[in-house]
Amino acid sequence: MNLRIPGPTPVPDSVAQAGAADMINHRGPEFADLIKRSTTQLKEVFETENDLFILTASGTGGMEAAVANHVNAGEKVLVVTVGVFGKRFVEIVRVFGGNPIELDFEFGRAADPNRIEEALQQHSDIRVVLVTHNETSTGVTNNDLKIVSDICQSYDCLLIVDAISSLSSIPVKTDEWELDVVISGSQKGWMTAPGLAFVSCSEKAWEKNALVTSPRFYFDLLKAKDYLAMGQTPSTPAVSVMFQLDKALKIMFDEGLQNIYTRHHKHAQMTRDGVRALGLELFAEEGSESDTVTSVRIPDGIDGLEFLEIARSQFGTVFAGGQGPLKGQIFRFGHLGFVTDEHIEEGLSAIEKTLQKMHS
Amino acid sequence: MNLRIPGPTPVPDSVAQAGAADMINHRGPEFADLIKRSTTQLKEVFETENDLFILTASGTGGMEAAVANHVNAGEKVLVVTVGVFGKRFVEIVRVFGGNPIELDFEFGRAADPNRIEEALQQHSDIRVVLVTHNETSTGVTNNDLKIVSDICQSYDCLLIVDAISSLSSIPVKTDEWELDVVISGSQKGWMTAPGLAFVSCSEKAWEKNALVTSPRFYFDLLKAKDYLAMGQTPSTPAVSVMFQLDKALKIMFDEGLQNIYTRHHKHAQMTRDGVRALGLELFAEEGSESDTVTSVRIPDGIDGLEFLEIARSQFGTVFAGGQGPLKGQIFRFGHLGFVTDEHIEEGLSAIEKTLQKMHS
Repeated sequence: MNLRIPGPTPVPDSVAQAGAADMINHRGPEFADLIKRSTTQLKEVFETENDLFILTASGTGGMEAAVANHVNAGEKVLVVTVGVFGKRFVEIVRVFGGNPIELDFEFGRAADPNRIEEALQQHSDIRVVLVTHNETSTGVTNNDLKIVSDICQSYDCLLIVDAISSLSSIPVKTDEWELDVVISGSQKGWMTAPGLAFVSCSEKAWEKNALVTSPRFYFDLLKAKDYLAMGQTPSTPAVSVMFQLDKALKIMFDEGLQNIYTRHHKHAQMTRDGVRALGLELFAEEGSESDTVTSVRIPDGIDGLEFLEIARSQFGTVFAGGQGPLKGQIFRFGHLGFVTDEHIEEGLSAIEKTLQKMHS
Repeated sequence: MNLRIPGPTPVPDSVAQAGAADMINHRGPEFADLIKRSTTQLKEVFETENDLFILTASGTGGMEAAVANHVNAGEKVLVVTVGVFGKRFVEIVRVFGGNPIELDFEFGRAADPNRIEEALQQHSDIRVVLVTHNETSTGVTNNDLKIVSDICQSYDCLLIVDAISSLSSIPVKTDEWELDVVISGSQKGWMTAPGLAFVSCSEKAWEKNALVTSPRFYFDLLKAKDYLAMGQTPSTPAVSVMFQLDKALKIMFDEGLQNIYTRHHKHAQMTRDGVRALGLELFAEEGSESDTVTSVRIPDGIDGLEFLEIARSQFGTVFAGGQGPLKGQIFRFGHLGFVTDEHIEEGLSAIEKTLQKMHS
């Protein structure tokens, strides 16, 4: 089966096998070596010297950690939304009693930094901004993160970035761009099974953390910091997934980060060109198309759910459907993590055959 | 290495290998089959027809889910503590703004149901009771769960049970004993890598859930229920660990639950007899010794941490140390999950050799 969804992504055999290694004591020296090595390597990919934590959770757990540690009940925060995952941030803020000011952009478009600045001018009491770097639901990348960060700096705001489906596939320069909290997840570009979220925190984030009273226990980052100093996690981590991550990181550094980014851009371009060559329309606006997932409009007269079902059951390719309001309107072609030219070519061929089948 | 800690426990090869299967779409039909099958089988082990959820988290995440969904800020709850994990419940309640009334029993002893009844008489406004079934930190089982449950019924209290290190190794009759919320974790008796928590909820628990306003998003059980109806989870689950669990459950049902309980009792008895035969003293009071983990007093004149280090590095056996106030006072010998007679014999032999070495 050609798994062409934007996560969980295919896991290379050697990584999958690494997860089957003998179980170890999560409070012993082997684990301490493992978590220290992985944390150091993750920081290298995040391009940061900030603290970074490996949490046993999905990426959404990482988003909750970011909110619960940095947003107070009653606090106004700016949530920049360009799709379903931006909306998820809104929901989490609301659950924690925060007051999310939603700055919505039309699905398919990137966020406009000017409008972010306007919003911060208008709401001078906002001190936290939440942004999605790569919106998995629409296939849009907010490429202006550095500009957004500069704006946040000048309005004295903490910037929290969901980079779940970009980090390790698309460059994220955490320190250079001054991103305070950055989140990713093992099942995306990291070529690892789901189960781990990664969260980095700047000094400014820690300062805010100390002032936040929102309830957090499982996702308490300060506790994670204390345990990491001992080479441990506060509670039992997903050890087998960490074994996989260790191997995947080795493969990634062998390939080289720049080569990985170049490969992702090439495969994204192949996908976009191929989709257009089939007469289909991309959903993301030009210039903001993601290098990890391509969203494609379902053509008129085609049932979106039936398209997915035929591609899967008859042509061995699993695409993702649209989420929320985009259900039935688009399908999504993932090309992040462990991807070869053949995966892309076979994916494009599956689209062609499925549409032929549906038209016949 | 003979991993003789009370979790994570050794994973049988076939289970470890099952985790290396090809990744699948967590929103597709294969996953729906998987989660429905595992949930049904877990309910069989829990002996319940209540709702049951598989969460991507450690057991502590399951504990947080139990509290966040069933305890309001400001609410008085009775927390029965017989060790470190009971204390963890206290901490979680406090983090969520609850008012934990701690009913502490001396470490090494089981909870006395009479004192639970007295506490509920004294605090007539308590409507939630939290109890640890098997206290991993002391090797004590609270065998009187049914009596505790009867008391909770008569005082109209919801009963939340941490059965993380008992369920699947020691019988837990969720429905017969009327346990409202029951928690377990994949890395214990389930012979599966860490990363999954299991939580069951009674009708009475759902009624309380609807009245609770504590913040919960990642651990929102109502959301988990909505998604489970579609054969999904709210966010991406630890798919590879779920592959393992599926295989482990198959092995467990092949062996038979009664046989598993008998085997655990036998291995626990072998361990206790063997430890006593070495002239060592059990930490747990007689009659409350756990069938999943045996706690042993470190003899006078022996450094507890050095004992662990020598057993590991020279005799290939990993025991767990004491936690919290028991650090250096006891060591713990895990015998839950995938355990053979040889594991126990080799474990006992490692204790003997380590002590000989330290005395020489």
